[in-house]
Amino acid sequence: MTSEYLVTLGQEAKKAERKLRTLPTGQKNRALNQMAAALRQVQADILKANQIDLEAGATKGLSAAFLERLTLTPERIEAMAQGLESIAALPDPLQKIDQAWQTDDGLWISRKRVPLGVIGIIYESRPNVTVDATALCLKAGNAVILRGGRDALQSNMAIMKVLRQALSQANLDPNFVQMIDKPDHSLAKEFMQLNDYVDCLIPRGGAGLIQNVIKHATVPVIETGVGNCHLYIHQAADIAKARQILENGKLQRVSVCNALESLLIDAAIVEQLPDLVAGLIQAGVEIRGNQKVCQFVPQATSASESDYAREFNDYILSVKVVDDYQAAIDHIDRYSTGHSEAIVTEDYQVAENFLADVDAAAVYVNASTRFTDGQMFGFGGEIGISTQKLHARGPMGLDALTSYKYQVRGQGQVRS
Amino acid sequence: MTSEYLVTLGQEAKKAERKLRTLPTGQKNRALNQMAAALRQVQADILKANQIDLEAGATKGLSAAFLERLTLTPERIEAMAQGLESIAALPDPLQKIDQAWQTDDGLWISRKRVPLGVIGIIYESRPNVTVDATALCLKAGNAVILRGGRDALQSNMAIMKVLRQALSQANLDPNFVQMIDKPDHSLAKEFMQLNDYVDCLIPRGGAGLIQNVIKHATVPVIETGVGNCHLYIHQAADIAKARQILENGKLQRVSVCNALESLLIDAAIVEQLPDLVAGLIQAGVEIRGNQKVCQFVPQATSASESDYAREFNDYILSVKVVDDYQAAIDHIDRYSTGHSEAIVTEDYQVAENFLADVDAAAVYVNASTRFTDGQMFGFGGEIGISTQKLHARGPMGLDALTSYKYQVRGQGQVRS
Repeated sequence: MTSEYLVTLGQEAKKAERKLRTLPTGQKNRALNQMAAALRQVQADILKANQIDLEAGATKGLSAAFLERLTLTPERIEAMAQGLESIAALPDPLQKIDQAWQTDDGLWISRKRVPLGVIGIIYESRPNVTVDATALCLKAGNAVILRGGRDALQSNMAIMKVLRQALSQANLDPNFVQMIDKPDHSLAKEFMQLNDYVDCLIPRGGAGLIQNVIKHATVPVIETGVGNCHLYIHQAADIAKARQILENGKLQRVSVCNALESLLIDAAIVEQLPDLVAGLIQAGVEIRGNQKVCQFVPQATSASESDYAREFNDYILSVKVVDDYQAAIDHIDRYSTGHSEAIVTEDYQVAENFLADVDAAAVYVNASTRFTDGQMFGFGGEIGISTQKLHARGPMGLDALTSYKYQVRGQGQVRS
Repeated sequence: MTSEYLVTLGQEAKKAERKLRTLPTGQKNRALNQMAAALRQVQADILKANQIDLEAGATKGLSAAFLERLTLTPERIEAMAQGLESIAALPDPLQKIDQAWQTDDGLWISRKRVPLGVIGIIYESRPNVTVDATALCLKAGNAVILRGGRDALQSNMAIMKVLRQALSQANLDPNFVQMIDKPDHSLAKEFMQLNDYVDCLIPRGGAGLIQNVIKHATVPVIETGVGNCHLYIHQAADIAKARQILENGKLQRVSVCNALESLLIDAAIVEQLPDLVAGLIQAGVEIRGNQKVCQFVPQATSASESDYAREFNDYILSVKVVDDYQAAIDHIDRYSTGHSEAIVTEDYQVAENFLADVDAAAVYVNASTRFTDGQMFGFGGEIGISTQKLHARGPMGLDALTSYKYQVRGQGQVRS
């Protein structure tokens, strides 16, 4: 039995969805801008609520990294407000017909973009997601039900109050955005099975959270996140480019899903390896490699099988010297999580082969995997990075938050 | 614990998928044509196997309709062979880049169509699906694992043997197509959770089968099928068109998902109702309506709430006289399964409003809902009709069996 509390949320979301479906772009944008203004206005209230969460978290012994992500500051609230405004400034993804054609029966068929409907977001204790996710979903015409981490509950409630008030002030239904404000675990599971009211679930967070949603959800899920990204330095690589791309991929931001976790290098150029990883070692990166790696890099330790399979999100890199192109492809096929994979090579045919052979959301030649990102791709924002193949793959911008319908215009046609 | 049997199937499928990913179109087409030739050659063996299924089914007391769907004839085998050839003749959906653009960092990004990977098909005892589904999946570069109804097991095994032999003769991996040939129920459930090896599940069959897959699957599912399709005859309708579209929708093929199940008519033209439904009544259709309907149509019986919610797939039509456009929209919003919905009207603005307001895979003005079909839409075939909003909606042709990847070409770019 689904609790009455969730059914009510679901019903309200469905009602809101119907209004949102055809809401003019200008009204959506005004609401987003109003939310931005409201966030700035009540900044003090939000910071106060955040303080309660932070104190409870500290008492509970949450890690420094966890508390850091939970922390709000005036700058972070300003960044949220600017995020809302920049999403208001993006083109409306619903103002678009992808394809239109006439059938042999004389019907005109238009494939028109439409909202997904009601989107459920399940995320960890990061209050900025509350604002980002809401803004992207709303802009694409979707009602939202949020379920954030329990340790951010006070912060999220304060933010939610502001967002909903702004909707009311814009004469819109505040239920465009709703939050599950009871932290019960049983509610989370019921939420994942609320098929009558929720069209799509997007989990945002670590591997544990995502796997939990996939395991329990009956609502369709878009899987995001885990990236065991490889860089393959081919024997025809420009070594200067290779080093730059390697250092950028590993060091620029170590804890994100598009950071490098593993390096493959052709045996033919293994003598370049010490120089290639010197900058990483200096920056404190631990190298775990196969025998050949340990032979050439004295600081390296021996890599276990599981080191090649892991997303470290840390100052650790697994390294393997491979015999040739095919060995690199086989390794990537075995260990890739299908996120981002890169080769460095100046060989035209090898580059083209890599682009064709590797099965990942983003496949790079001579560029850093760190570019797998909605902003970098030019989408103006992202709700996450999909590592599944259904619906959307890679960085998901506003388009990924839409579906389509076929509008069919006839003159009385029937099927014979 | 997943059974060893399924893990082996999964591993073989993954291996096959790697080969299929970059298999030239010509080779795929030759394999499909070879399958067609082989089916014709061993027709007698298939019919013999089918006879065993049919006899077992009759002994078991399966319904006449069930046995009819299970029955193979020389004509039906010929139709399967022609189906294979027509899919071979379609354009390859992988030979396509949807979009390509340059980012501010100078990267060229191409969105290239790629196969989904390994597709699982779960279906009822209809041997023709074994061939159709295989052909569409293969053409789109996917490996397939089939799990058909147990009452068609002998037929399916005979067909599968032919398809796999044809692959071997074409020097291709026979494991491009595999079948779960043990009828255990526990295997079906494990199959739905074979996330390490299966990228997507497509259930094909009745509502019960589909709901069972949605409930148990952890692999992403494309929901197909259920259609509670409405025809709304607006007060500005051309009554001759309305009657034709109504009769076509209800009578042309009564048991399919795009057949009409419900009629709405404006109160302003209720006096036209007896004439509109006269042909249906003559053809044996039972009319279940609200009070106003019963008042005007003497043969009508009183409709219950559940009559409006049901997909009859039978000679029954629920009918409602509605006050106005908004009442019709509200009714459709409440009872629609999001499959196909139609209006008959000569009023331009009402037609445009209906196309915008109604949330369904296909929304029609002045045409029969029976057109919601891959062939009719011009897709050359279909794997099913999606009633969900994620990934694909409405008739799913070859494109719906593909995903995409971003191929990114750089000149050494790193993220700053």
